[in-house]
Amino acid sequence: MRIKFHEQLDDLTNQLALMCHLAGEAIETATDALVQADLPLAERVFDLTEQIEQLHGPCEEQAMALLALQAPVARDLRQVVTGVHLVTDLSRMGGLAQHVAESVRRRHPNHVTSGETEEILNRMGRAATALAGLAEQVLRTHDPELATELGRRDDELDDLHRRLLTLIEDPTWPGSIPAAVDATLLGRFYERFGDHTVVVGRRVIFLVTGEPLSP
Amino acid sequence: MRIKFHEQLDDLTNQLALMCHLAGEAIETATDALVQADLPLAERVFDLTEQIEQLHGPCEEQAMALLALQAPVARDLRQVVTGVHLVTDLSRMGGLAQHVAESVRRRHPNHVTSGETEEILNRMGRAATALAGLAEQVLRTHDPELATELGRRDDELDDLHRRLLTLIEDPTWPGSIPAAVDATLLGRFYERFGDHTVVVGRRVIFLVTGEPLSP
Repeated sequence: MRIKFHEQLDDLTNQLALMCHLAGEAIETATDALVQADLPLAERVFDLTEQIEQLHGPCEEQAMALLALQAPVARDLRQVVTGVHLVTDLSRMGGLAQHVAESVRRRHPNHVTSGETEEILNRMGRAATALAGLAEQVLRTHDPELATELGRRDDELDDLHRRLLTLIEDPTWPGSIPAAVDATLLGRFYERFGDHTVVVGRRVIFLVTGEPLSP
Repeated sequence: MRIKFHEQLDDLTNQLALMCHLAGEAIETATDALVQADLPLAERVFDLTEQIEQLHGPCEEQAMALLALQAPVARDLRQVVTGVHLVTDLSRMGGLAQHVAESVRRRHPNHVTSGETEEILNRMGRAATALAGLAEQVLRTHDPELATELGRRDDELDDLHRRLLTLIEDPTWPGSIPAAVDATLLGRFYERFGDHTVVVGRRVIFLVTGEPLSP
């Protein structure tokens, strides 16, 4: 019974890591779509987020079944409850990648953004992709040091976000107001994507150590 | 044992409703602060979100204790797992209200926004406050019809959000690019606040009926 339980828990862990992998692929592809104004790439993002959502329900059901049938305690319980949370975080990461892709589709065949603004957003996209890759490793290894590293790496994304807003608000910025609105929202999507990877890290630290998440 | 369990579950329900109440008060106060450019009101929001965060940890611990000690099944299990999710949703609603208040503090003593833009944001704030009030009722009553109503009411908030973006992007809009950035972010915060109340509703429907959340 216990062996079966741990097999199912490993299976849940693998599914969560796969959701994270897909979210990373989605944000990378959305960023490629953004800088290339490439509609087929944007549509590929919708496929990826659809795949994430197809894992969402089964993962939640599996976590519920583990709670109902096995009544886990201590670390096992923390792992299942963390899994319940992670499904939501990872699904939201997919949703944010989808928002980037929707922006590309809305402005196609034009570029959503250009010049230095596009360059910073591109760098935000690469940083977000790297964070998703690291979060996937954290989910697979449950390594609390790697999990802590997510917070540090996210600081780089936050720096880029501040640079983006400073750039847009500079009186010499050449863009229009609709371009400012788009860039503001895109910056926010990437920033939130990064925040969610940090939360993934903190949840894994809770799983391993029992230390609560907040503040 | 079962009676004690249901007492503790009722206690968790009350705490969640209180978190929702505080989130509603936070978004209302943040909106007052926004339209009056009132710094003490903005600071009141930070107190409210601090109160929400003080409930966050204990609610999660209580849910974990209910799972560990009582091994609930069926609807009881759904209610505890839903509680685990709701803590995160409600905390995030507080965080979004805080973002509105931070925007007020950053631009003080100036208004963040003005004219028709401020008027629409004010209406978004009132709609968000009403949604939080309804969500609190849903948390207290577990009434699935009221829960469904949250989705309908949120459509009004989404309409206001679309009107806001159309207004800002109109070539005759009198604001600057920094004003557009602020209004874009504020609109997004209110929209997301509303989305979270809808998720609260869908979680309560899951609790009552066992129907999964997605898509």
